[in-house]
Amino acid sequence: MSHNSFGHLFRVTTWGESHGPAIGCTIDGTPPNVRFTLAEIQAELDRRRPGQSRYTTQRQEADAVRVLSGVMPGETEGEYISTGTPIALQIENTDQRSKDYSDIARRYRPGHADVTYDVKYGIRDYRGGGRSSARETAMRVAAGAIARKVVPGLVVRGALVAIGDIWIDRARWDWAETSNNPFFCPDAETAIRWAEYLDGVRKRGSSVGAVVEIVADGVPAGLGAPIYGKLDADIAGGLMSINAVKGVEIGDGFAAAALSGEDNADEMRPGEKGRPDYLSNHAGGILGGISTGQPVVARFAVKPTSSILTPRQSVDADGNAVDVMTKGRHDPCVGIRAVPVGEAMVACVIADHYLRDRGQVGVARV
Amino acid sequence: MSHNSFGHLFRVTTWGESHGPAIGCTIDGTPPNVRFTLAEIQAELDRRRPGQSRYTTQRQEADAVRVLSGVMPGETEGEYISTGTPIALQIENTDQRSKDYSDIARRYRPGHADVTYDVKYGIRDYRGGGRSSARETAMRVAAGAIARKVVPGLVVRGALVAIGDIWIDRARWDWAETSNNPFFCPDAETAIRWAEYLDGVRKRGSSVGAVVEIVADGVPAGLGAPIYGKLDADIAGGLMSINAVKGVEIGDGFAAAALSGEDNADEMRPGEKGRPDYLSNHAGGILGGISTGQPVVARFAVKPTSSILTPRQSVDADGNAVDVMTKGRHDPCVGIRAVPVGEAMVACVIADHYLRDRGQVGVARV
Amino acid sequence: MSHNSFGHLFRVTTWGESHGPAIGCTIDGTPPNVRFTLAEIQAELDRRRPGQSRYTTQRQEADAVRVLSGVMPGETEGEYISTGTPIALQIENTDQRSKDYSDIARRYRPGHADVTYDVKYGIRDYRGGGRSSARETAMRVAAGAIARKVVPGLVVRGALVAIGDIWIDRARWDWAETSNNPFFCPDAETAIRWAEYLDGVRKRGSSVGAVVEIVADGVPAGLGAPIYGKLDADIAGGLMSINAVKGVEIGDGFAAAALSGEDNADEMRPGEKGRPDYLSNHAGGILGGISTGQPVVARFAVKPTSSILTPRQSVDADGNAVDVMTKGRHDPCVGIRAVPVGEAMVACVIADHYLRDRGQVGVARV
Amino acid sequence: MSHNSFGHLFRVTTWGESHGPAIGCTIDGTPPNVRFTLAEIQAELDRRRPGQSRYTTQRQEADAVRVLSGVMPGETEGEYISTGTPIALQIENTDQRSKDYSDIARRYRPGHADVTYDVKYGIRDYRGGGRSSARETAMRVAAGAIARKVVPGLVVRGALVAIGDIWIDRARWDWAETSNNPFFCPDAETAIRWAEYLDGVRKRGSSVGAVVEIVADGVPAGLGAPIYGKLDADIAGGLMSINAVKGVEIGDGFAAAALSGEDNADEMRPGEKGRPDYLSNHAGGILGGISTGQPVVARFAVKPTSSILTPRQSVDADGNAVDVMTKGRHDPCVGIRAVPVGEAMVACVIADHYLRDRGQVGVARV
Repeated sequence: MSHNSFGHLFRVTTWGESHGPAIGCTIDGTPPNVRFTLAEIQAELDRRRPGQSRYTTQRQEADAVRVLSGVMPGETEGEYISTGTPIALQIENTDQRSKDYSDIARRYRPGHADVTYDVKYGIRDYRGGGRSSARETAMRVAAGAIARKVVPGLVVRGALVAIGDIWIDRARWDWAETSNNPFFCPDAETAIRWAEYLDGVRKRGSSVGAVVEIVADGVPAGLGAPIYGKLDADIAGGLMSINAVKGVEIGDGFAAAALSGEDNADEMRPGEKGRPDYLSNHAGGILGGISTGQPVVARFAVKPTSSILTPRQSVDADGNAVDVMTKGRHDPCVGIRAVPVGEAMVACVIADHYLRDRGQVGVARV
Repeated sequence: MSHNSFGHLFRVTTWGESHGPAIGCTIDGTPPNVRFTLAEIQAELDRRRPGQSRYTTQRQEADAVRVLSGVMPGETEGEYISTGTPIALQIENTDQRSKDYSDIARRYRPGHADVTYDVKYGIRDYRGGGRSSARETAMRVAAGAIARKVVPGLVVRGALVAIGDIWIDRARWDWAETSNNPFFCPDAETAIRWAEYLDGVRKRGSSVGAVVEIVADGVPAGLGAPIYGKLDADIAGGLMSINAVKGVEIGDGFAAAALSGEDNADEMRPGEKGRPDYLSNHAGGILGGISTGQPVVARFAVKPTSSILTPRQSVDADGNAVDVMTKGRHDPCVGIRAVPVGEAMVACVIADHYLRDRGQVGVARV
Repeated sequence: MSHNSFGHLFRVTTWGESHGPAIGCTIDGTPPNVRFTLAEIQAELDRRRPGQSRYTTQRQEADAVRVLSGVMPGETEGEYISTGTPIALQIENTDQRSKDYSDIARRYRPGHADVTYDVKYGIRDYRGGGRSSARETAMRVAAGAIARKVVPGLVVRGALVAIGDIWIDRARWDWAETSNNPFFCPDAETAIRWAEYLDGVRKRGSSVGAVVEIVADGVPAGLGAPIYGKLDADIAGGLMSINAVKGVEIGDGFAAAALSGEDNADEMRPGEKGRPDYLSNHAGGILGGISTGQPVVARFAVKPTSSILTPRQSVDADGNAVDVMTKGRHDPCVGIRAVPVGEAMVACVIADHYLRDRGQVGVARV
Repeated sequence: MSHNSFGHLFRVTTWGESHGPAIGCTIDGTPPNVRFTLAEIQAELDRRRPGQSRYTTQRQEADAVRVLSGVMPGETEGEYISTGTPIALQIENTDQRSKDYSDIARRYRPGHADVTYDVKYGIRDYRGGGRSSARETAMRVAAGAIARKVVPGLVVRGALVAIGDIWIDRARWDWAETSNNPFFCPDAETAIRWAEYLDGVRKRGSSVGAVVEIVADGVPAGLGAPIYGKLDADIAGGLMSINAVKGVEIGDGFAAAALSGEDNADEMRPGEKGRPDYLSNHAGGILGGISTGQPVVARFAVKPTSSILTPRQSVDADGNAVDVMTKGRHDPCVGIRAVPVGEAMVACVIADHYLRDRGQVGVARV
């Protein structure tokens, strides 16, 4: 992936810092005549938006997105039709508190990019995390909303499957539950446990990690490519590029390492239209880097944010020993808001591969 | 990543099928005046080469690499000096047994790319796995041998840390041991257990997965880039592109999800040359996508190969139900040979980011 | 080049239509700590801005550019310092006259992209030319203003050398004259002839083509690359991407085809610092795709705009025969405003190659 | 374009030096099930091959190409069917005379890349021009042979239209003549004049430039893209990347600069299938960067080679003044062999845009 861009035919470039005037993205390569509404983009953004519960940062941004190019108005209010030219999306930054950043400017927060940005560039926009702020992920979500429209029949959903070491019970998985609790939890009972657990984390100013699972249904068989353009390789790169992500799995992932070949094989029986029916999906819908037509399943691990109330040892930009403690608003579990971001990344990667496959092979995928 | 290429400034393109006349790669962007010997490339290839123990496939290939372009002869026998133009490497395929492939041509092996290649392309080189064969990874290893020379001081090593559910004991980790057993195992005692265990797996014609860990020492601080060009995102994509890999972790990886922010923070104290000393390395040497100067640590999970002696249910190209059993040579644990491949991918990604960083920022990294 | 992006390490992506809310660009890869002022960007934009004389379109836009990301404030008012993250630039569209476009929407102007956009995409923003409007070139100029800062000592200047078949007299070439007339003409006497000539063209509602010459001084020797990444190949692609450009030359260009090898050779004598002094510059500062250290010289031909008052035969979107005549504001010679655009493209290409060379070779160029 | 690669979806990477063991290329992205024969590639190579007349260099190479990957055998002898994986092509270098290169190694030939390669890389394969030798263009021609198969109905032809200042008479243009003379001249009478003229040039050890014209018929309307991915921009970059090319034109090219808008407009009348009939083709088949469906017409100027028998002033690698005279085989007019090379580049660019258009827009072009 390039510095601030990803994708080949469906290519997303983002820009903007946490406390600059705005953030934005350009989506190049959207097919013409794709219809979408501002409300659809906004709905995805609202799912990611912080400040919606006591479990995410209290920053309050309307996150109102504008579509600045690449569209013609559709027939109904708020509908757009893509023209095939670049779609520019933009969100004003409205909640940049005019606080004094001189403290954070010179003191490196452990576990944050403060120190590495300074080492690399010798200069850094330290206000609110600058470019490394999770605020950038809003543009991924906006781009993902359009990506979802590019592949007919594609449905990408995400759920939180673990907070700390509390995992959901897969037997109780119900997608509908993910919108009934502030955690995108598909298991109503676990959501209750998490609420209690996270209240404790939040009250002691601590933080905790999480695991997110993304499932893409309706992915046509045949997307992806040998050898480096594998669908799973691009998904892995895309998910690992999300802030605080430290691990990515496809299908059974690390658990597959402990399986035997007999148990891991996804057997096949003759199915409809000459396509095989798979009897299991250990592979997560991808074989040899190419989609099988089954659901594409990916998981990623989000580390606990280092923005905590307990002082940690650090250094400042002058090389002095300092103690750093994060004040102000923060997320006790940044993994929660990563759910719609992960969905968006998977949607964008699939849209890109959908176009790439159509370019090379040129057949209609079903 | 592109279909058969990866990297931006250090860009590797591979080609070739398992049973074609040869396999090869082109490395574009190597700096001029990089010195390397044929023996150094060959030594890396020999580590990956199958047929070296009863635990890997018995295919016997000399894997003798030729350097066809991009170099001038050095002062000593077998030494090359890069000229800055593309380096083409090539290995003849010498052990393509002239067997009858009509069986495998039409019957899809479960867990293999047979079916997805056919669905995607409508045509496939089925001989020995064709393009999806692990044979392609020889060229990754060859390219990695040159990548190692691009970054002064870079040392990339790998080890197998789990076979099936038998994990090494990290307290016994000794890099020297990795060349004392056929498993790249850094723990001599576990290597003995693995030998016994894998003998059983092999005798019953089964297979098992594994976990590989790669550690890169000597990575200068400052490599990587926001937001999509993160060093860890490119490592994740690169490792996930290796055959049979289903999961990738950086640093603590999935385990980080269960940590608190206090435990996960890598605290800092003033170090030499104005750079911080880190008191731990949960992050795996990467913060915000940029290297810290600590060792870069990545792990990946390799699934058990589906090439097993137990018949599995499948379909053929005509949509008929068939049973498929793999005959002939195969690896009971393909994860073993993935160790040098993983090293090579990490070396290539770091070399690419080394050049990219130098391009944008233009300072000498230490 | 990608659809709406160009460059590898200094990468520019533009977006926006003539009559949308705004146009903009993202510049990814600018080195950190590059200093520039808003006034410097604005000054370049003002040179390109229409409506400054009776020889260019009377559209009146302030073309006030905003810097939305990628910078920290400098010490002086209006100064920015790049941080190494993407720089987003944006200009509001303020002079979109709310006229009725239903006529132009369906009738294809000969020589314009109306018909090809419709054939390709099946939909088109027809208002003011949409994406194919020359308005997009404002963002090239803005990006070029920053590119000029990336390469120390680089000076890129342009001049109009022909309007119609009236060529300047090179013996009278004076760069200072280019800012004394509305044509960027380096020859004061020819400027007077052009004024008279263009008045006639304008009065009869006609248009005429032009030839632009760009000279880049201070280009370090060693930029460019074999074989497809040649500096001249990228300049040619970049200049040909400017609206209405139909030809590109480097150095002697097409005239070189009529020379003998003796006359075309740029002989060398020993120069300072071990570098050769060249006795001529037929090659335009580039040999084998790599800069020699001499001035880089490029020329491009701009066709006459088809927006003229004389009716021309055409068809409409329903396939009917129609006559089309352009009403309203237009440029009698679009080549004039192409001068700063050509400068910007050359500056961007050189900046990109400067970073690419530094990445691969890693030495300081002088 | 990247250093040694071009194209996005139909991507060609070449490698090899004039006097190394071989040259080769990898073509990534060819659609599956494209049929071609070795004879078809060889026929194109034979057109480019030197030593076929006294007007081109007397180097004698069989230039026998091998197909090493990416194909399955077709039904007939020598037929291949692409599988969608990378196609590797390779030609052994068989006529590397074992001469003493110590002279040329240190003395820079004026007008050649000797000096710039040395300045850039500090090392250079000087044997026979190394990477900058025209020998590399054989791989372009080979790749072009496959590109021609990718776009149904595409016919790309080239002709030499000027040698020195002797231009053909377009009224006598006959494509069939281009294979009746050693110059690819479409005008039999001019071919006779050229023969006499070139004999003189050759005898006095001089050289002369030329102009090549490429015409692509059967290009579907709708290929290309705004703004930087214009079809003509990519053709310009591709042609300018050919050795010794100094100028590129599309359609009327530089002559368009002298036309009025009235004369330059390609008027339209209703045609078949709802598509316009164009009454002229000043634009060379491309409007706004997108193909109109008319023939795509490009021209390029090739400078005279500096390899001449007359001594020219130069310097050596130590900075001493020397006189350089080219001994041995050379082309009096390198523009002749550039004809099939130019065809190949245009074919590759069109194939790439054909796939890119199909990726984004997804309709069958006619």
